[in-house]
Amino acid sequence: MRPYNTEIISVGTELLLGHITNTDARDISEMLSRIGINVKYHTVVGDNPERLLACVETAKSRADIIITTGGLGPTCDDLTKQILAQAFGLQLVRNEDEVRWLYDYISNKKNFTPNNFSQAMLPEGCTVFHNRWGTAPGCAFTAEGKTVIMMPGPPVECVPMFRAYGVPYLRSLSDEEIVSHAVRIFGIGESAVDDMFADEMNAMTNPTMAPYAKECDCLLQVTAKARSAEEAEAMMAPVIEHVRERLGDYVYGMDVECLEEAVFPLLKKRGLTFSTAESCTGGEIAKRFTDIPGASSVFLGGAVVYTNEAKAKILGLDPHMIEEKGAVSREVALALAEHVRNLTGADIGIGVTGLAGPDGDGVHEVGTVFVSMAVEGHTFVRNLHLGTTRTRSFIRRMSGNHAYDMMRRWLTGLQVE
Amino acid sequence: MRPYNTEIISVGTELLLGHITNTDARDISEMLSRIGINVKYHTVVGDNPERLLACVETAKSRADIIITTGGLGPTCDDLTKQILAQAFGLQLVRNEDEVRWLYDYISNKKNFTPNNFSQAMLPEGCTVFHNRWGTAPGCAFTAEGKTVIMMPGPPVECVPMFRAYGVPYLRSLSDEEIVSHAVRIFGIGESAVDDMFADEMNAMTNPTMAPYAKECDCLLQVTAKARSAEEAEAMMAPVIEHVRERLGDYVYGMDVECLEEAVFPLLKKRGLTFSTAESCTGGEIAKRFTDIPGASSVFLGGAVVYTNEAKAKILGLDPHMIEEKGAVSREVALALAEHVRNLTGADIGIGVTGLAGPDGDGVHEVGTVFVSMAVEGHTFVRNLHLGTTRTRSFIRRMSGNHAYDMMRRWLTGLQVE
Repeated sequence: MRPYNTEIISVGTELLLGHITNTDARDISEMLSRIGINVKYHTVVGDNPERLLACVETAKSRADIIITTGGLGPTCDDLTKQILAQAFGLQLVRNEDEVRWLYDYISNKKNFTPNNFSQAMLPEGCTVFHNRWGTAPGCAFTAEGKTVIMMPGPPVECVPMFRAYGVPYLRSLSDEEIVSHAVRIFGIGESAVDDMFADEMNAMTNPTMAPYAKECDCLLQVTAKARSAEEAEAMMAPVIEHVRERLGDYVYGMDVECLEEAVFPLLKKRGLTFSTAESCTGGEIAKRFTDIPGASSVFLGGAVVYTNEAKAKILGLDPHMIEEKGAVSREVALALAEHVRNLTGADIGIGVTGLAGPDGDGVHEVGTVFVSMAVEGHTFVRNLHLGTTRTRSFIRRMSGNHAYDMMRRWLTGLQVE
Repeated sequence: MRPYNTEIISVGTELLLGHITNTDARDISEMLSRIGINVKYHTVVGDNPERLLACVETAKSRADIIITTGGLGPTCDDLTKQILAQAFGLQLVRNEDEVRWLYDYISNKKNFTPNNFSQAMLPEGCTVFHNRWGTAPGCAFTAEGKTVIMMPGPPVECVPMFRAYGVPYLRSLSDEEIVSHAVRIFGIGESAVDDMFADEMNAMTNPTMAPYAKECDCLLQVTAKARSAEEAEAMMAPVIEHVRERLGDYVYGMDVECLEEAVFPLLKKRGLTFSTAESCTGGEIAKRFTDIPGASSVFLGGAVVYTNEAKAKILGLDPHMIEEKGAVSREVALALAEHVRNLTGADIGIGVTGLAGPDGDGVHEVGTVFVSMAVEGHTFVRNLHLGTTRTRSFIRRMSGNHAYDMMRRWLTGLQVE
């Protein structure tokens, strides 16, 4: 099935007004690229029957798989289902399972109207995707040699539904299995990774390997196709082993999304805790970790010490030392990590101080950051120069990545500084 | 010019692989909707000459204004300029100003190659948009009755360039001025705002008014067109006054992006400071405020006290009180605000404790949050029930909005609880 070309059509005037971002198309594309399906076009069109129909006709002429997002709920008159059924000459028929489910749902919640039942009208012969994250069901059908999948628009419904139903449905069209792994890398850039493996990558056809840059780290995606997932895994294993060997301790994890996600199980396994003292990152390191459900089992808390007074009052740093060494200094970074560790009783203390910009302090360049870590009997500091042209957001995020990288390295017995 | 229909074509295989999100199309659409230009389509296509040309031909058939993003740099062989010039039968000619600028740029930086000069090749007769945020210039031209604007792809270049050059260029095509203001609203939902003004909105043609939902607040966009900006402002003034009067203190600001942006100048004007003690929000309230450059003039810092031990050790809360009242309680919320205020010497202390989920604590429902504020001589608490079906991310963000809303209300003499 893999030369199949795909077009994602997102339906919604709000997208065209710039009120929301088309993250559905991004997330679906990412899931498809992991199973080796080529996305050739994204199209966004408003809640307008004629324009949507014209877009569907265009998609039929240039794609094998058409995926729609949005336009399934009662407020948009179920536009997408109507138009897709029309484009493929299908009738909409009432799905009794969905009617029953909606009926039960309504008896519990009061703000439903009878026209919610129009959600249960689906193209004849389609596969129904029951929506456990909302009310409007999705569906899929094959007609005129094209495969059509329809998903609701809200990302909290669209993304889990596509993962649960869309991906398996597309996999089932083929007797090939595509399996993919992401080797996550920190400390070396995407272009360096590219250089390192360029010749090999050009010579590979199955498995394949491709580097991708993320905001503050990068990854190498390894993908194989075979008659079974086991066979694909077996084909990838030596490639991944080779990659990990050459990249060494730049590799921070497999199939994880970020450094903190790699650090969490390392702490949990060893029953260790950490706390943070953040100046220039202003709470971002704590915020990122507490995005993870269950974070409190290893993260005790910390301090946001944006001003010198806060460093003294909350964490008890010596104001004369801050004055003498400067707020952006190795000494203050170390004191932050040590003091927050002592104060909270955590196994690991993290400290960050630096200049996130846009204004400098007259001493250091914007992008100068000291990231420190204190553990029993040891302290570590990294002095970063993240570049004067970088955004405030990049400098803060990258500083956090360094903090998590230092923890990862210490927890796995690697060199930290 | 306003019935002009617009299509945004974003060029980049990375978008189709799901590695990046098409925020350029969102941001440009938002800027265009503010000046009354209708965006009818977004299209994303890869770095492929044939497919891009076909997309441009489609856009010519259905849009009056074509805006491209991406495909301007040397790594993609300046695909977009080549194809757009070809589609409109134009030659690319060397722009000497851009050559000179690039030459100066190269003498400073070493990693430039001669083929960077291909960036200075631009469609004959075009208006050149010099890129102060990167190296690849943008441009605009009118041909065959269509207006074409080309922008670089990286959002840090595309967005400020479109604001600086794209918007004025499109405005200059018309002798009408379109001016728009966003009335930002917190504490009442978009549908309630819609109900409140539905009849008026339906009857209005110029100015117009439309409500929009954001993740944790909403806005009412008021837009007018006239022969001059002054005239448009004058037409809107009574409408905005009427809206503000009816919405009362739900209005937190005009043309701001978020509550913290509205709170910052209120604090600064009065020379007041605040600090935060965050349990369930885990540093997000501090992080959001320190996203604003210059935040340290009013934000002293705070504590992230994710565990009971941290609440006691960092802020000195009484462990017995926490035990007796429960970590998620009015009393703990108040103690957090009071202790962090006393510890830091801030004028305002903010405390947050609650359940962001996905797991509950066996006592309260997920979404139960206490947000507190301590000022000289007074304390305030809001007990929120944000809903058991909400995401962790929503609950945390909404809690932060309530904290900023309480500050805003106190700072402007409104009722807080």
